[in-house]
Amino acid sequence: MPRRADHLARRRQLADALLRLAASQGLEAVSLRHVAAEAGVSTGMVQHYFRTKDEMMLFALDVVMRNAEERIGAVIAAAGRTLSPAELVRTLMIEILPLDETRRLEGHVILAFLAYAAVKPQIADGLHRDADQLRSFVGDQIRAAQATAGTAPRIDPGHAATALLALVDGLGIQLLGRHFSPDEAVAALDAHLDLLFGAPTGR
Amino acid sequence: MPRRADHLARRRQLADALLRLAASQGLEAVSLRHVAAEAGVSTGMVQHYFRTKDEMMLFALDVVMRNAEERIGAVIAAAGRTLSPAELVRTLMIEILPLDETRRLEGHVILAFLAYAAVKPQIADGLHRDADQLRSFVGDQIRAAQATAGTAPRIDPGHAATALLALVDGLGIQLLGRHFSPDEAVAALDAHLDLLFGAPTGR
Repeated sequence: MPRRADHLARRRQLADALLRLAASQGLEAVSLRHVAAEAGVSTGMVQHYFRTKDEMMLFALDVVMRNAEERIGAVIAAAGRTLSPAELVRTLMIEILPLDETRRLEGHVILAFLAYAAVKPQIADGLHRDADQLRSFVGDQIRAAQATAGTAPRIDPGHAATALLALVDGLGIQLLGRHFSPDEAVAALDAHLDLLFGAPTGR
Repeated sequence: MPRRADHLARRRQLADALLRLAASQGLEAVSLRHVAAEAGVSTGMVQHYFRTKDEMMLFALDVVMRNAEERIGAVIAAAGRTLSPAELVRTLMIEILPLDETRRLEGHVILAFLAYAAVKPQIADGLHRDADQLRSFVGDQIRAAQATAGTAPRIDPGHAATALLALVDGLGIQLLGRHFSPDEAVAALDAHLDLLFGAPTGR
């Protein structure tokens, strides 16, 4: 299906241009015209993918979310065995944190999107849906760990998942502002995971 | 000293105007001229307090930080007794979370500032300094709790403080996006504090 392949390749090209601009200028400052110039295509072509600022923000968010999903799938596949709930949660959290340049770029997009969505709550739905899915998954893993590993404290799994994802969001923001080194952020995450799962999570 | 009082009153007037505009439009979209119009003063008067966009962002951040400090001081004074380390930490975290309209306004400013500082790291110094002070204070409280309350797990206090402040930042962002109710955010915070201090923190 070459048409579908074309569509995906074009989408990737625009996404790359958008992420580069967002990282250097802030997503708020980027216009559709900027993206077209950076990608070397016409504004009309860009408008095929997003027509308005809101649609551009949603496009950027979608790209970032799909990238993270792909990376997480690859890491889990590469493990070559079934991960314990604690290991699985740690893998997810590490892939979400902006620990390298690719994830920093993505993190800038999410942060810009959050700041934008905070004053335009109606466009935050997609973000909430993704976050709810992830939270539900993490809550299930915490519940499973409590059922199988006697060391995990009996904390409410839903509240624990909310707290853990908030913690990773907060660490991510501090990493973007280069307030911490990646090592410090991972140490803080691991300290929390040790509390949550009652034992080191196999790293 | 009426001159000093004038200065403070004017500063408060401009700060209020700036916070109102930031909440409705996003701080990024606010200009010095907007602030002058909203406060009913001349642009020249505004420029006495901040001359550039960067200075305006720093002014807004400073106002928000001082407001939070004042509130925290008042809450601690109102307790009328010495709070335990765990109670003190919870009081601080609750006052930082955007649980009411005043703190939502402040939260919008901080979030906008974070998004701005992420692409302009040189202006993030003030934010880092305040965050480091708070983190150091929280770390000391966690250390004190471990020394006095046998129930607190032996987690590294520095990492634990980093994780707790990241968690509160993350919850704050989700509250601003109205992803959670204030009750859900406080429940997630309390679940974490229970883990951290090994017991309910006296609420």
